[in-house]
Amino acid sequence: MADPSAPAPGPAGPPDPAIRMDWQRRARTGIPEAVFCEGKTPDHIRAILTQARDRQARLFLTRLTAPAHDALAGDFALDYCPLSRTAVFGGWPQAELRSDQVALVSAGTSDMPVVEEARRALAFHGIAAPVFADIGVAGLWRLMDAAEELARFRVLIAVAGMEGALFSALAGLVPGVVIAVPSPVGYGVSAGGQAALTAALASCAPGVLAVNIGNGFGAAAAACKIIG
Amino acid sequence: MADPSAPAPGPAGPPDPAIRMDWQRRARTGIPEAVFCEGKTPDHIRAILTQARDRQARLFLTRLTAPAHDALAGDFALDYCPLSRTAVFGGWPQAELRSDQVALVSAGTSDMPVVEEARRALAFHGIAAPVFADIGVAGLWRLMDAAEELARFRVLIAVAGMEGALFSALAGLVPGVVIAVPSPVGYGVSAGGQAALTAALASCAPGVLAVNIGNGFGAAAAACKIIG
Amino acid sequence: MADPSAPAPGPAGPPDPAIRMDWQRRARTGIPEAVFCEGKTPDHIRAILTQARDRQARLFLTRLTAPAHDALAGDFALDYCPLSRTAVFGGWPQAELRSDQVALVSAGTSDMPVVEEARRALAFHGIAAPVFADIGVAGLWRLMDAAEELARFRVLIAVAGMEGALFSALAGLVPGVVIAVPSPVGYGVSAGGQAALTAALASCAPGVLAVNIGNGFGAAAAACKIIG
Amino acid sequence: MADPSAPAPGPAGPPDPAIRMDWQRRARTGIPEAVFCEGKTPDHIRAILTQARDRQARLFLTRLTAPAHDALAGDFALDYCPLSRTAVFGGWPQAELRSDQVALVSAGTSDMPVVEEARRALAFHGIAAPVFADIGVAGLWRLMDAAEELARFRVLIAVAGMEGALFSALAGLVPGVVIAVPSPVGYGVSAGGQAALTAALASCAPGVLAVNIGNGFGAAAAACKIIG
Amino acid sequence: MADPSAPAPGPAGPPDPAIRMDWQRRARTGIPEAVFCEGKTPDHIRAILTQARDRQARLFLTRLTAPAHDALAGDFALDYCPLSRTAVFGGWPQAELRSDQVALVSAGTSDMPVVEEARRALAFHGIAAPVFADIGVAGLWRLMDAAEELARFRVLIAVAGMEGALFSALAGLVPGVVIAVPSPVGYGVSAGGQAALTAALASCAPGVLAVNIGNGFGAAAAACKIIG
Amino acid sequence: MADPSAPAPGPAGPPDPAIRMDWQRRARTGIPEAVFCEGKTPDHIRAILTQARDRQARLFLTRLTAPAHDALAGDFALDYCPLSRTAVFGGWPQAELRSDQVALVSAGTSDMPVVEEARRALAFHGIAAPVFADIGVAGLWRLMDAAEELARFRVLIAVAGMEGALFSALAGLVPGVVIAVPSPVGYGVSAGGQAALTAALASCAPGVLAVNIGNGFGAAAAACKIIG
Amino acid sequence: MADPSAPAPGPAGPPDPAIRMDWQRRARTGIPEAVFCEGKTPDHIRAILTQARDRQARLFLTRLTAPAHDALAGDFALDYCPLSRTAVFGGWPQAELRSDQVALVSAGTSDMPVVEEARRALAFHGIAAPVFADIGVAGLWRLMDAAEELARFRVLIAVAGMEGALFSALAGLVPGVVIAVPSPVGYGVSAGGQAALTAALASCAPGVLAVNIGNGFGAAAAACKIIG
Amino acid sequence: MADPSAPAPGPAGPPDPAIRMDWQRRARTGIPEAVFCEGKTPDHIRAILTQARDRQARLFLTRLTAPAHDALAGDFALDYCPLSRTAVFGGWPQAELRSDQVALVSAGTSDMPVVEEARRALAFHGIAAPVFADIGVAGLWRLMDAAEELARFRVLIAVAGMEGALFSALAGLVPGVVIAVPSPVGYGVSAGGQAALTAALASCAPGVLAVNIGNGFGAAAAACKIIG
Repeated sequence: MADPSAPAPGPAGPPDPAIRMDWQRRARTGIPEAVFCEGKTPDHIRAILTQARDRQARLFLTRLTAPAHDALAGDFALDYCPLSRTAVFGGWPQAELRSDQVALVSAGTSDMPVVEEARRALAFHGIAAPVFADIGVAGLWRLMDAAEELARFRVLIAVAGMEGALFSALAGLVPGVVIAVPSPVGYGVSAGGQAALTAALASCAPGVLAVNIGNGFGAAAAACKIIG
Repeated sequence: MADPSAPAPGPAGPPDPAIRMDWQRRARTGIPEAVFCEGKTPDHIRAILTQARDRQARLFLTRLTAPAHDALAGDFALDYCPLSRTAVFGGWPQAELRSDQVALVSAGTSDMPVVEEARRALAFHGIAAPVFADIGVAGLWRLMDAAEELARFRVLIAVAGMEGALFSALAGLVPGVVIAVPSPVGYGVSAGGQAALTAALASCAPGVLAVNIGNGFGAAAAACKIIG
Repeated sequence: MADPSAPAPGPAGPPDPAIRMDWQRRARTGIPEAVFCEGKTPDHIRAILTQARDRQARLFLTRLTAPAHDALAGDFALDYCPLSRTAVFGGWPQAELRSDQVALVSAGTSDMPVVEEARRALAFHGIAAPVFADIGVAGLWRLMDAAEELARFRVLIAVAGMEGALFSALAGLVPGVVIAVPSPVGYGVSAGGQAALTAALASCAPGVLAVNIGNGFGAAAAACKIIG
Repeated sequence: MADPSAPAPGPAGPPDPAIRMDWQRRARTGIPEAVFCEGKTPDHIRAILTQARDRQARLFLTRLTAPAHDALAGDFALDYCPLSRTAVFGGWPQAELRSDQVALVSAGTSDMPVVEEARRALAFHGIAAPVFADIGVAGLWRLMDAAEELARFRVLIAVAGMEGALFSALAGLVPGVVIAVPSPVGYGVSAGGQAALTAALASCAPGVLAVNIGNGFGAAAAACKIIG
Repeated sequence: MADPSAPAPGPAGPPDPAIRMDWQRRARTGIPEAVFCEGKTPDHIRAILTQARDRQARLFLTRLTAPAHDALAGDFALDYCPLSRTAVFGGWPQAELRSDQVALVSAGTSDMPVVEEARRALAFHGIAAPVFADIGVAGLWRLMDAAEELARFRVLIAVAGMEGALFSALAGLVPGVVIAVPSPVGYGVSAGGQAALTAALASCAPGVLAVNIGNGFGAAAAACKIIG
Repeated sequence: MADPSAPAPGPAGPPDPAIRMDWQRRARTGIPEAVFCEGKTPDHIRAILTQARDRQARLFLTRLTAPAHDALAGDFALDYCPLSRTAVFGGWPQAELRSDQVALVSAGTSDMPVVEEARRALAFHGIAAPVFADIGVAGLWRLMDAAEELARFRVLIAVAGMEGALFSALAGLVPGVVIAVPSPVGYGVSAGGQAALTAALASCAPGVLAVNIGNGFGAAAAACKIIG
Repeated sequence: MADPSAPAPGPAGPPDPAIRMDWQRRARTGIPEAVFCEGKTPDHIRAILTQARDRQARLFLTRLTAPAHDALAGDFALDYCPLSRTAVFGGWPQAELRSDQVALVSAGTSDMPVVEEARRALAFHGIAAPVFADIGVAGLWRLMDAAEELARFRVLIAVAGMEGALFSALAGLVPGVVIAVPSPVGYGVSAGGQAALTAALASCAPGVLAVNIGNGFGAAAAACKIIG
Repeated sequence: MADPSAPAPGPAGPPDPAIRMDWQRRARTGIPEAVFCEGKTPDHIRAILTQARDRQARLFLTRLTAPAHDALAGDFALDYCPLSRTAVFGGWPQAELRSDQVALVSAGTSDMPVVEEARRALAFHGIAAPVFADIGVAGLWRLMDAAEELARFRVLIAVAGMEGALFSALAGLVPGVVIAVPSPVGYGVSAGGQAALTAALASCAPGVLAVNIGNGFGAAAAACKIIG
């Protein structure tokens, strides 16, 4: 705990609160804590990575900008992906990845940053997930062609922006659990992904589950919990 | 024109502005003026119908509540439909209706009030439109089964609430013009039809055209213009 | 299919489109179609129930108002629950219900209509789920006391209105999958459940999955898919 | 299809999903697929253009930034317009353009980026459309002067930002189909084009059809379908 | 002032704070205080009217429901207008009304409740204003026909719902001050008058001034100040 | 705890979860739990009141509708106030109320329901608060006249709807803590109290503290905590 | 008119629509057309200025960025103000400015860009307006001190951001017409000026008139019309 | 006062209104005026600092960007904190800081800019506040571990972004006054801090008080008032 009984930080200097990572989260919930880097300074992230190194813990980092990565790359071995702005510290799992459980489905190529955040987060947790890209409903034959194969997976993480019609069409075709990840792809009324999010929540196909816009990591975490 | 040079309406009495119907609209735009009854008192509507009777004009009325209809039914021969809250004054077209040009497609039975507003407006303008009901994307086979037949129409008026995924799926399958009518069916994030409207506007299928939520009449008017 | 090649519905009469239920949905997706009654007239629902009776199919109905139920109760044996506005046609499952898989957790007593929609939908699909009511975070001891027991379930359906803090607190404590159902309980900024929905989506606890506000049925359908 | 049965992408490397263009869309819907470049990396676009070159297909690209164009211009012959951020690959139609069918009407000079996206998309599909610029309703004489000429076109694509009053005024004057394209011109309450979009949808003139804010391409696609 | 030093209101009884009318407002601002009745009980209004009677003051009441009026009508002589839900206490001005200064222009008959609130408020303040009704832009000839006459007024109070295009069209034609009153007429995106309000604020015609949705009284008050 | 290990509630019957009141809340936080009645059935409230009677506990109830009160009044002695929809069970405090610490200030008479909820909640907790009603900024002299007296209180609970300008004006005049309670008084853009809430949060006077719209109880609870 | 009968613009080149300025607007409405520069390229503005030079017309330009100004400054004599992003072409009025009619009142120094847009627009139209700056309600004495002097003006243009309480306080004190200009000053809920706009529209002081956020030019135009 | 009777500012030059600081605010309200630097030019701030220097007054500045600070640092001795964008002019209090009254609690490291604004503002007013960082509810043990210590403070300023569940959990555990400061940390539905703000206002724990998003200074000002 940041020692609040210590002398109060002087008025002129910034405080240096101890980082309080929830290292026990995996034991409680099955999912280890990840580092959401938005709003953190490189010094904040450096302190977290140092704790991880001291504990020999692996960490998954999201929303890590390229400049922040550059500021850290000299001191920490990070596997960084600029497309998804994710990084892995401490290496990938050493055991072979489980597969045939989770698939990633995307509506268009513009959704790849979110797809990749989810795919890497799954891999970090030991799960290999194939990507079925570019399956938007404007050309339904693409979804129809893939339907039989998609029906074999227990969990389908679907990523779509714009109007997000993919979520409903997919959920009506397959028995697996559909996790909808709205993607911030679009303009005008769909700028920022709000339209796709609404489509996921209002789906006429029962059982569609939604996460926040662009939250590929959250979808991956839920998928891990579902397949146990 | 309400004669503004006449003595100003007395302070204690309501004004009686002359109704100023745009009887020339059909000549200019091809679509005659209709009567939007929301916010009008039965007396307002009565004055309009009286003008129509005097001119031997036919009129289409929308958003006519059952009580308002009851207040008028004694004096005017109205063909009233409570489901769509529309009424026809002056009778249906006497010539045979054109068909094979416009089809109506709906996602679910709850959308029927809007479907019926559009279908009756089309009939008022001389166009018979078959209804393909209950074609929501949660069971895509329904849309696939109908696709070949739907591909024959020049205009498809699609009515859907909730997430409105029907609009994109349909527009990717057929060459006809797709007019999307969001329906105020749903709850939570889709209450009021806003989610379906957004889906229509953000569609990944190019060329989807949208009208206001529940505006079956507007969709019918546009369809009339399109088929000429 | 509503036979669109039949004579077009006459201009003056309401159409009678054939109901097009998706009876095959269970085979495809594991979840049978349910009947969303909002916006449907009693005649619409009657037509659907008649089809079900003819097929000897069981049906789950949501958003069935008491007056609509009353209009149908004479002709169909419905197990109706006015609190959740759900009804079961064709009886409950005859096999013993599975239990120990899914739990229901609610923040307050006002959330019970949504809880009950989910509980009955689960039971309709053969799953018994105990209810842990009144576990809001304003008295965290309630959640802490129940944490060990809640940690045994594979799926936790959490129902909360107002600020929806329960979702994050619960998801940080247990390994099961947390499905958040925002409840339309609250006033001012939380009127209608939007605040709780946002809390579910923005949760700092990874892996929280959200459904639409008040969508107890959707949460139950997803839970069924998760436990297989 | 991106071969999902191939070895799963390694945890440390970005996936390389095959691009899955819907080359058959023109056959189905009359409108070939276009490339929405927002959110795509230059490498994504390069892969798509390579497919097009291999098939000797022409392509229309929207939302292509100048830097992305610069990255591609060395390898592909693109006719790029920085004002509308559109590009044409594979050349313009060789047959003479059809004209006298579609007109473009804009409220102000600030709307020209959207006008130009529509005009170029029409030309790509073989339709020449004259531009009636600067016809905002603040000076109604401009619209009145043009009304007779505008009345000759079958389709009028109207582009307006701010309050979008042009849509209603135009639709009340001419018999052609009016497609309203809200333009992201304005500030305060009209920032981003939302006010103009609302005006298009809420128009008191029946039959106005709307597309998403700034969606000149979509309006052009719909116009192509309408004139057949 | 409600005497706060008096014994505090007992816990079990409702407080009875003295009504604190701003009887001096006319002297300061030229406009006497009016009574906004929404949210006030009949007892609250009764107390205010009693004060007015004691001071021999005239009062204008807005948003007075018919039941509230009925509860008061026995004790106070109110000139009540159910269409606009306004009432006048203490009689109309005895001097002849000024005219030729302010005109009321409305887009449609559904706007008459708001028009009438403004017209009666003007009359209460001694100003007669003619009503030019049904001048919506869907039939621009109506506005053009009236333009010359409208150009004679110093202030034009324009009332419109739906997309509110009237405000811009009118302001581009006449030299008078245009006060836009959005009217809660419309449905879907224009429900509640928000679309018309946005149109007033985003108008491309410079100098349009807006008041709150349905605020006919406020527009009248501003007009009184403008003409002095 | 609702005994979840007991036999699961049968599929056909409503569950009867034990009410789980947080009777220890006062010990922890200084403020006893209150009963938010919205969304609770009379049976739910009855169960809570029975627990309270058994424990000889006093309870404060908010958002209790008159019909719900009527259903309970025969069995429980409730001091009910229809204006504020609050009730007290178990009687008021027996000790004399503290005064001179908290004042209530309201902008208009329409705000009295919220004022009264706060006043009664304060009295329930042993605090007498005088009411300074009708102090809206449209007549600043009212606020100026009261300023000296208001400056004596440690806490000022200010209740205002519409544009909520009272909050800033008051906070700039007095040294006491200002708690702003937005009131759902207004129409158009201020319907529901959102405008007043925004004003409280955006106040240019530093230190204004806000609670939810209409949350008189919450303001009273905070005031109790502040004065200790 | 942009000659639409001329050869259609070639597919590969940008169109060059003739600029269609509304040079007659002053004659019709008393306010000459101004140039809204946002969204216009320097070439667009250049074309407009060239027309103005040819006609020896003066022009007022708003939202002119510094880079756009720099691109034009070599060819046109512009009196540019970077704070308000306005420019005057063709010089200021040669006659002495009218004064004592319009005053500008601002809540804080951050509002000066909007104040200055209004002040310069007034001066362009021949009106000198003194500025009463920094009169926010957090220190009401500032407003009180100025009240007597402010009461002498016929029109008061009030500029405020954040919660916009100044509008109501001012309007309750003076007999002049109050035009409220919301300023995009603030953060969180008041970011962009929306909160201040709402305050202007929802004001409890009757007769406050609002323009769009940041629309100092519009307020000036209205003030010119009011004082004739 | 900016002397409005002086010659009106010339049309071509920017005005130079006198800065009108509210130096008496501390005497009236206990909290001295601070300088909100957003939207002010360095020259504006320079003028304010010069006044302060002349009066030998201390000042707290918020939202001071680094470039603005750099422009001023040569002339004024400012203690600047780039993380919180705050600066102190005139030095910190010379007396020893009061402590043990106010604590700062934050959900995550990304909230530190807001925490630091509050901490420095408290120190400027003579109050030392320890920081309990990283106490988000996803790992409730962190809050539980600190609960006993937190229960000793009279005021707790809680800073959280995303879903803001910390506010309710904390307020249910401690007797101190909880001031919730939403932090603009998050993405998608929680971008900008709106979700956390809603959570603060809708909290199920009574007595939570909210300030605007990111308003650490306002929370500090209120805390000062509360502890007197």
